Amino acid sequence: MSDQADTAFMTQALQLAERGLFTAHPNPMVGCVLVSDGDIVGEGWHKVAGAAHAEINALEAAGAAAKGATAYVTLEPCSHHGKTPPCVDALIDAGVADVVVGIQDPNPDVNGRGIAALEKVGIPVRVGVLKEQIEQQLSGFLRRVTTGRPFVRLKMACSIDGCIAMASGQSEWISGPESRADVQRLRARSGAILSGIGTVLADDPSFTVRDPDIETCGRQPLRVVLDKDLRMPLSAEMLALPGATLLYCTDDSKRGPLIEAGADIVKVRAVDRLVDAAAVLDDLGRREVNDVLVEAGPALAGNLISNDLVDELVIYQAPHIMGSETMGMFRTPTWTELSDRRSLDIIDTCQVGPDTRITARIAG
Amino acid sequence: MSDQADTAFMTQALQLAERGLFTAHPNPMVGCVLVSDGDIVGEGWHKVAGAAHAEINALEAAGAAAKGATAYVTLEPCSHHGKTPPCVDALIDAGVADVVVGIQDPNPDVNGRGIAALEKVGIPVRVGVLKEQIEQQLSGFLRRVTTGRPFVRLKMACSIDGCIAMASGQSEWISGPESRADVQRLRARSGAILSGIGTVLADDPSFTVRDPDIETCGRQPLRVVLDKDLRMPLSAEMLALPGATLLYCTDDSKRGPLIEAGADIVKVRAVDRLVDAAAVLDDLGRREVNDVLVEAGPALAGNLISNDLVDELVIYQAPHIMGSETMGMFRTPTWTELSDRRSLDIIDTCQVGPDTRITARIAG
Repeated sequence: MSDQADTAFMTQALQLAERGLFTAHPNPMVGCVLVSDGDIVGEGWHKVAGAAHAEINALEAAGAAAKGATAYVTLEPCSHHGKTPPCVDALIDAGVADVVVGIQDPNPDVNGRGIAALEKVGIPVRVGVLKEQIEQQLSGFLRRVTTGRPFVRLKMACSIDGCIAMASGQSEWISGPESRADVQRLRARSGAILSGIGTVLADDPSFTVRDPDIETCGRQPLRVVLDKDLRMPLSAEMLALPGATLLYCTDDSKRGPLIEAGADIVKVRAVDRLVDAAAVLDDLGRREVNDVLVEAGPALAGNLISNDLVDELVIYQAPHIMGSETMGMFRTPTWTELSDRRSLDIIDTCQVGPDTRITARIAG
Repeated sequence: MSDQADTAFMTQALQLAERGLFTAHPNPMVGCVLVSDGDIVGEGWHKVAGAAHAEINALEAAGAAAKGATAYVTLEPCSHHGKTPPCVDALIDAGVADVVVGIQDPNPDVNGRGIAALEKVGIPVRVGVLKEQIEQQLSGFLRRVTTGRPFVRLKMACSIDGCIAMASGQSEWISGPESRADVQRLRARSGAILSGIGTVLADDPSFTVRDPDIETCGRQPLRVVLDKDLRMPLSAEMLALPGATLLYCTDDSKRGPLIEAGADIVKVRAVDRLVDAAAVLDDLGRREVNDVLVEAGPALAGNLISNDLVDELVIYQAPHIMGSETMGMFRTPTWTELSDRRSLDIIDTCQVGPDTRITARIAG
């Protein structure tokens, strides 16, 4: 098979995988196409944990045509019994001729064993087609499986002069409706939304996915609030909504009524008199959260960026000047020299309605 | 002549005009092409005040071929004796068949008289080809001639979170070398650079065009400093450099030594205990400054934007996060409500080295 054909079929598998963006969590989104004589004879993707994997759906679509076909799978097929039987066995049983894998699955349950099992029965396997794109698509899953922590995406809405609110706190509609709709998609792809108690007390946010055009199969991201002394009001909107709310505190003496109101509470250690954000991320990793979306004020945003805990920034920059009687994006009391600043690699800039959306990684 | 041909030939005239961007000041940049049987037979542009106008240069290039040609001129030809004889007479004498004018010249010395003089001798004139582009090119000249004030372009370099310096004032190299080279072009196209005494005391800037690739025919923009109490040090770099320095004050009791050091000094009234920036712009208009480039700190930038005296913003946004121990872009003590903010129309965004250059107008 030519490199060009490999790229074309793996691109199709990648696009199929993307359909699971809002639903596959905590599983990786995966896509698969089966190709016979240059034609696609079966397609599949993984929709939701517990349902069939991409390979199984593609084999089912292909039926007898799977025999002798080439299977393109974005992620290494599993070789272990999880919620469903191993995909490797199904591929062997169907008689596929060879397998092209986008990236090896670093999950300790797989990690090369799927590829080895195929090769052991004489099925040739090639690995690494569209590697960068697939790693980008699975950044959250790969981050968690390899480091134990989720991928942290920090979203902020600001004016062109870097203001997120007036000094009084007044901040409604800094960004336009298109940006707010875009944030719904960021939420839907995330396993958890992380915020601080200051934002909850100021704005009483819901942090839910409300856009009827986004199909999450009923799943709402976990709502996570860093709430050192458990100041969360029992009347907080998020406690009354579908989905779970998880509070991290350093003093849990007020836990009783909040647990009755439906919150989960975890006590962690304090660092510099704040909830230890790194410990929170470790715990979220253990809870199988792949992607965390941070929607927070300048204190938590500054804390995370100062501690190098942010992987990606998504900034919605509105075409306004807000001036000096305002709040900035990051509170960073320890950054007193110009050399304390952080450099960014801008990976994407695009218009979202009147706003400019800037996606950036912290430069290494 | 078809609309398509009109557009093509006027575009060529517009590009010829642009060659005068750094030199024609305080005259408008103007371009002219002469077209005969679909071919360009002569081209001209206006280089520097006192030298020949675009039409004369084009007629000279065409020689006898000008007879019966169509003349495309970006700006209405002059009908009065200025530093050079009227272009209308030269066009008539050369026997051009017809004239296409980009925009009418609102200069009271012309203002339709050039067009009328051509029509009076039976030469048909069409007006309005590439009107918007030519108005954009001549924004400074048109602003001054119609309102008496220059076009005000405010340049700022900042981080993605809207910081221009550390709180300590440390601010070297916020933007990259490519942006600083680009600022040289902004300076060269401006009749004056406007700043505040705070910036002079902090940075001792020169505000000169130093790029050897920019041909200004020896002209340096006028350096203008708002210096209420004449605190400008006699040792200030700009006083020693080629070109003139003009100080606006409200108390001129310390004028003697500064005048000896080469500065020009104008006393204007105070508004809110500050130099009246509107009066300064009126005075710069009387001095035939078409374009003012503001290179200033947050106090003057905030003052100008609050008083609606800024026409265009040019923001060099560096891919950095600088945090909270910093200076913001605009000091606007009177903007206490979100509704005080100003909306921008982004007219251009482009990469300049690692930075993003955003050009914007204040929305009407």
